[in-house]
Amino acid sequence: MRATTIHAPGDIRVEEVPDPVIKKPTDAIVKVTAGCICGSDLWPYRGENPIRRGSTIGHECIGVVEEVGAEVRDFKPGDFVVVPFCHCDNTCASCRNGAQSACVNLGMTSSGQGEYARVVEADGSLVKTDGVPDEALVPSLLALSDVMPTGWHAAVAAGVKAGDSVVVVGDGAVGLCGVLAASVMGAEKIIAMSRHEPRQAIAKAFGATHVVAERGKEGAAAVKEITDGIGVDAALECVGTNDAMTTAIGVTRANGGVGFVGVPHGVELPVRTLFEKNIGLRGGIAPVRRYLPELLELVTSGRIDPGKVFDLTLPLEESPEGYRAMDERRAIKVLLRP
Amino acid sequence: MRATTIHAPGDIRVEEVPDPVIKKPTDAIVKVTAGCICGSDLWPYRGENPIRRGSTIGHECIGVVEEVGAEVRDFKPGDFVVVPFCHCDNTCASCRNGAQSACVNLGMTSSGQGEYARVVEADGSLVKTDGVPDEALVPSLLALSDVMPTGWHAAVAAGVKAGDSVVVVGDGAVGLCGVLAASVMGAEKIIAMSRHEPRQAIAKAFGATHVVAERGKEGAAAVKEITDGIGVDAALECVGTNDAMTTAIGVTRANGGVGFVGVPHGVELPVRTLFEKNIGLRGGIAPVRRYLPELLELVTSGRIDPGKVFDLTLPLEESPEGYRAMDERRAIKVLLRP
Repeated sequence: MRATTIHAPGDIRVEEVPDPVIKKPTDAIVKVTAGCICGSDLWPYRGENPIRRGSTIGHECIGVVEEVGAEVRDFKPGDFVVVPFCHCDNTCASCRNGAQSACVNLGMTSSGQGEYARVVEADGSLVKTDGVPDEALVPSLLALSDVMPTGWHAAVAAGVKAGDSVVVVGDGAVGLCGVLAASVMGAEKIIAMSRHEPRQAIAKAFGATHVVAERGKEGAAAVKEITDGIGVDAALECVGTNDAMTTAIGVTRANGGVGFVGVPHGVELPVRTLFEKNIGLRGGIAPVRRYLPELLELVTSGRIDPGKVFDLTLPLEESPEGYRAMDERRAIKVLLRP
Repeated sequence: MRATTIHAPGDIRVEEVPDPVIKKPTDAIVKVTAGCICGSDLWPYRGENPIRRGSTIGHECIGVVEEVGAEVRDFKPGDFVVVPFCHCDNTCASCRNGAQSACVNLGMTSSGQGEYARVVEADGSLVKTDGVPDEALVPSLLALSDVMPTGWHAAVAAGVKAGDSVVVVGDGAVGLCGVLAASVMGAEKIIAMSRHEPRQAIAKAFGATHVVAERGKEGAAAVKEITDGIGVDAALECVGTNDAMTTAIGVTRANGGVGFVGVPHGVELPVRTLFEKNIGLRGGIAPVRRYLPELLELVTSGRIDPGKVFDLTLPLEESPEGYRAMDERRAIKVLLRP
């Protein structure tokens, strides 16, 4: 099949690789209808994560079941499915406790930017749509593979509830989906920290009531002012850097909550500040499967449209250009069509 | 008045100091019926916190209102009161958000191991008992000044709920009160980590279903075994050292919660582990006033008896011996009678 591969920092190719195959009777193979590039794919692209030379890349996709293993009961070839980027059996103790991203049989989509993807624990992982969806729904369904549930997770982890004031640190696709999540949950003030006009526009479309373009101390002061000097009830940290975490904790009121979903790179948690302000901290890899039924309903009913985060669509063969566009912040998120 | 003072590490004295006086119209002066020594008083005693030479020490007490400032409305001389160690107006934004320990008018009892104590924001801070309590209730009422609400806060912060499995790291008075809190909240398995027989006995009396005497990796392995290899739903960190925090986080299941109330000394939070396991972390100085009405009712109704943590009662003049007894772990917690 044709698939995106990474060879070295900055070296993304589309080439012929072996088709994924059923390895365990609980596996399924999905023919990818749409895949995409994730902000976290930029970590190896920028040389900040180790790279296995020539490996396929891409963990987000939706598509049509092509083949299932002998023990797969709930899916058959032809089913249209959303593929959560982390696969889970949805039955183990971790899954029952809502931590599907720590499933004992955890798997991960590894060729979402290709023509086919293998899904382990297909029955536990996949979620079916009601028939083949309208083309117009494709971007929003694809967003359910990772960014929307991840933004949602940030809001859940931060404890967002109706009437809250919320800040979202990070204006990538996940941060924007965090704005959307806070809005659905009924937050009253939603402050998007963004200095990038197209992203500000999406944040507003998703429900942001305020935009703060400043960063660091100036940004924190602006957030404090919007919240009458008190700080926000909940902060969503959607970047993963120490600066972003420092801002998120710094603008949260005493007894508030910080939800963090940016993969931590160089983050040092200030235990004394957390202690003195009694700020709660929770986050991690989103348990996508846990949220999928609810989010799928929100998308198919037209209540949310997270697909707006895709501002560039390219054929799979132009995947390297997609990486460049995201790396240079010319695109928020790139959708790839095989 | 006579009061306990600290002059240097290990140098505790009882001497004549000026009586505390009303400085602001919202102040009250309380004649101390009973005070006590806190585990956290051992930090300066052991030279691990700075000391202001000759200053009074002791932040826990109960007693009788002696005098009130002109603006105090709800208390009058003769009222018997529980004095939360952190004073608060109970009306500011932090207090309204349940963070009374981050009140904008925060104060602290500073001569609880003396004959009189000044309380700032008396109306917001103090809680009255129904008349002068029976002598038998004195220890449990005194425990409401700090240790019981602090153990309770650890359980609240960890998210303990009915049916949970809970571990308590730390067998000091706060840890033991954490066991009691988890029990009241309906936890099903309560694992007390303690190697000290008298403390184990109190833990069991307070509701511990299991005792683990091992520490470090062996201790963690024992807790995992009790929880079928999964880990606890909630961990209460009631020490403040890095070892205690490491144990608490290490034995918590994916998507579980850690509540920490030990004042952090050298704690480094493992952000990657928290992220990978989606473990929630929350804690800090207990907002005592928030919990006092509920806890006072539990004490006066006889439902809980946190006063059991006092295993040595001394006259105020023997305060230095009280410090030695706690430092050498001959006593769990020392009650002082002026």
